[in-house]
Amino acid sequence: MSIAVIYGGTRPNGNSEKLTELVIQDIATEKIYLRDFNIQPIIDMRHSEDGFQERNDDYNSIIDRILPHDILIFSTPIYWYSMSGTMKNFIDRWSQTLRDPKYPGFKSKMASKKAFVIAVGGDAPYIKGLPMIQQFQYIFDFIGMEFAGYILGNGNKPEEVLQDKVALFAATQMRNQLIENI
Amino acid sequence: MSIAVIYGGTRPNGNSEKLTELVIQDIATEKIYLRDFNIQPIIDMRHSEDGFQERNDDYNSIIDRILPHDILIFSTPIYWYSMSGTMKNFIDRWSQTLRDPKYPGFKSKMASKKAFVIAVGGDAPYIKGLPMIQQFQYIFDFIGMEFAGYILGNGNKPEEVLQDKVALFAATQMRNQLIENI
Amino acid sequence: MSIAVIYGGTRPNGNSEKLTELVIQDIATEKIYLRDFNIQPIIDMRHSEDGFQERNDDYNSIIDRILPHDILIFSTPIYWYSMSGTMKNFIDRWSQTLRDPKYPGFKSKMASKKAFVIAVGGDAPYIKGLPMIQQFQYIFDFIGMEFAGYILGNGNKPEEVLQDKVALFAATQMRNQLIENI
Amino acid sequence: MSIAVIYGGTRPNGNSEKLTELVIQDIATEKIYLRDFNIQPIIDMRHSEDGFQERNDDYNSIIDRILPHDILIFSTPIYWYSMSGTMKNFIDRWSQTLRDPKYPGFKSKMASKKAFVIAVGGDAPYIKGLPMIQQFQYIFDFIGMEFAGYILGNGNKPEEVLQDKVALFAATQMRNQLIENI
Repeated sequence: MSIAVIYGGTRPNGNSEKLTELVIQDIATEKIYLRDFNIQPIIDMRHSEDGFQERNDDYNSIIDRILPHDILIFSTPIYWYSMSGTMKNFIDRWSQTLRDPKYPGFKSKMASKKAFVIAVGGDAPYIKGLPMIQQFQYIFDFIGMEFAGYILGNGNKPEEVLQDKVALFAATQMRNQLIENI
Repeated sequence: MSIAVIYGGTRPNGNSEKLTELVIQDIATEKIYLRDFNIQPIIDMRHSEDGFQERNDDYNSIIDRILPHDILIFSTPIYWYSMSGTMKNFIDRWSQTLRDPKYPGFKSKMASKKAFVIAVGGDAPYIKGLPMIQQFQYIFDFIGMEFAGYILGNGNKPEEVLQDKVALFAATQMRNQLIENI
Repeated sequence: MSIAVIYGGTRPNGNSEKLTELVIQDIATEKIYLRDFNIQPIIDMRHSEDGFQERNDDYNSIIDRILPHDILIFSTPIYWYSMSGTMKNFIDRWSQTLRDPKYPGFKSKMASKKAFVIAVGGDAPYIKGLPMIQQFQYIFDFIGMEFAGYILGNGNKPEEVLQDKVALFAATQMRNQLIENI
Repeated sequence: MSIAVIYGGTRPNGNSEKLTELVIQDIATEKIYLRDFNIQPIIDMRHSEDGFQERNDDYNSIIDRILPHDILIFSTPIYWYSMSGTMKNFIDRWSQTLRDPKYPGFKSKMASKKAFVIAVGGDAPYIKGLPMIQQFQYIFDFIGMEFAGYILGNGNKPEEVLQDKVALFAATQMRNQLIENI
C-alpha cells in the first residue's frame, strides 16, 4: 500500500505539518503541498449544457498524483474552525472530476482508498474542531472512502503542537497503523 | 441599519442566490459576489518577523465594502458539507486583517454587526449542513458578531430550492426580521 | 399508514406537546406519554451469561404499542441540550429488546418505519439543539429507520412556541407530509 | 482540590469505569455510582405556581456529595450516541436545584468547579460520540463550569477499552493533569 499526504497549510513547517512529519517519518510517501500549486475555485457547471470547463490550473496534476495511492492523509491547519480554504477549494473541485470523462471511475477509485486526517488548531481544537471532523466524515462517506482515523492537535505558535502529548502519542499510533498497512 | 450580502456561490442564479433574493427583494443591499473577485488564500505569517504581506488582490476592497454595514448576510451553496472554498478563503483572510494596521479596530467593528447565513445544498442539508452552522457560530463568536439567524434550504437542480416550502417561509420571516431592523 | 407519537415531556401541555398537537390535529394517532409510565433505566447485561433480566416495568407495553405503526414521532422538550432523560431511558432499553427472544425481528420491524422528531427548547435551539438532531440521525441509522424530518422550536414559557412562526409553518408542512403518507 | 467521580454506567466494571479507574487510581476521590441510587426524572414545574415538588428520591443526597468538590469527572458509557439515561436524568434535575431554596448559590458553586468527561462506546465513538461532547460543552457553559478535558474510548466487550492505546495514553495524561491540580 502506498501513501499520499495532502498538505493544506500555508506556512512551511507549520504545526499541522510538524505533527504529520511525526506520523510519516521514514515512511515513503508522496507529499503534496497544496500551497505550491494554483488551484482555482470550482465554477459549478453541473447544470450547464456545456458542462464543466477546463480551469487550466494545477488541480488535475494533483489528482493524477493521488490516484495511484491507497492511503490519503489530509493534513490541515484549522483555520476558522475548518480546513484551510486552499484544501477546501481542492475538495470542491472533486465535483468536477466526478463528471470529467478524462477521469472515468474517479468515484470508485477514490472509494478504494483509506483516509486519515491530521489537523492542528489553536482555539480549543478538541471541541471546536469537531464539526470539521464530522464534515470529513460526510465527505469520505459520499466518495466512499473509509475514514480510518484522525488526530486533533493543539498548537498556535510555531512547534507548539510538540507540547501536546496526547496528539504526539496519537501520532505514534497512527504511524504504527500505517506501517501495518503498508 | 444597512445590509451587505456576501455571495459565495460560483453559479449565477444558483439556488442559494435565489433563496437570498427572496429574503432581500426590494430592500437596499450592497451585493458582493465573491466569484467576481480575485481572493488569494491566506499565507499564514502570524509568526514571521515581517508579518503578513500584501497579497495584491481584491480582498481588501471587499472588506472596505462590508465594514460600513450593520448586517452581513453570508449566502453560500453547501459544497461538500461546508461553505464554498471561495467563501472560506475570504474568511480565512480575516486573520490577516485582524493584524493589519490599515484596519485598526477591525474586530470591534465586526463585533458590532449582526450576521445571517443562507445556505442551500442538495444532500440532506437539514442534517449534513449542521456542522457548517456550528462552524459559523464559532466564527461569529470569535469575531464577536451576533448570529441572528440562518436558513438551510434543499436544492440541487436550478431553482429547485423554490420547492422547499419551509425554506421559503423561513426566507419570509428573515425578510421581516431585516425590515424591522432597518 | 398509521402513526404513534412518543412524548418525552414531563409537563402536560408543554411547548413540545403544543407544537406536536399542531402537526397531528385531526389525524388518528396512538399517543404515548412516557411520563405516565414506569420505565426503568437499562441494566447492561449484554455480556452476562444470563443476559438481560426482566425489569418488570411498563417498557414492553410501550414497545407493543409502537410496533404496529408505520410512523413514529418523537416529541421531546430539549432538556440540557438533548432529549429528556425519560425519553433517553426509553431508547436505551432498545438495546435489551434487540436481544429479547420475545421480540424477534425487532430491528427489521423498526427499520420499516419512518421517524420524525419535534423538539422545543428555550436556549437557542436552532444552534444548541443540533447535536441532538445528529444523535437522532445516528440512532435511526443504527436501527435502520428513515429520518423523515424534524422541527426545532423555540419556547420556554408555556405556549411560547406558538410565537415561533417558522416552527409553526414547519409544523404545517410536516402535517401535510403525514397526511400524504397516510 | 478534591475530586468527585459520577458514574453513569449500569454494568459494574464496564469499559467506561475501567478507563476511569486508570485515570484516578491512587488518587483520593468521592465515587458516586448513579446506578445505586433512585433518581427520578425531572417533572418540569418551572411555570407552575407551586414550583418544583420534592421527588423524595436520592437525587439531593448526590448533590450534597458533589458540591464540596472542586473537580467533577463524568464517566459514562455511550448508549445510543449519548450519555446514559441514568446520567441524563441526574443532569436534568439540575433545573430543579437551580430553583431550590435549599440550595442557594447552586449555579455559582457549580461554576467554580472543573469538569472532565470520560466516555466509552463501541460504535465509532471518535466520530459518533462527538455530538455528546458538544452537548457536555453546552451543559458546562450554561452552568459556568470549565470543561477541562475529555477522553473518548473505544470498547464494547468487557475490558475491550484496555486495547485502545490512544485512550489509555489520554487517561495517563488526564491523570497527570489531576495530580497537578490537587
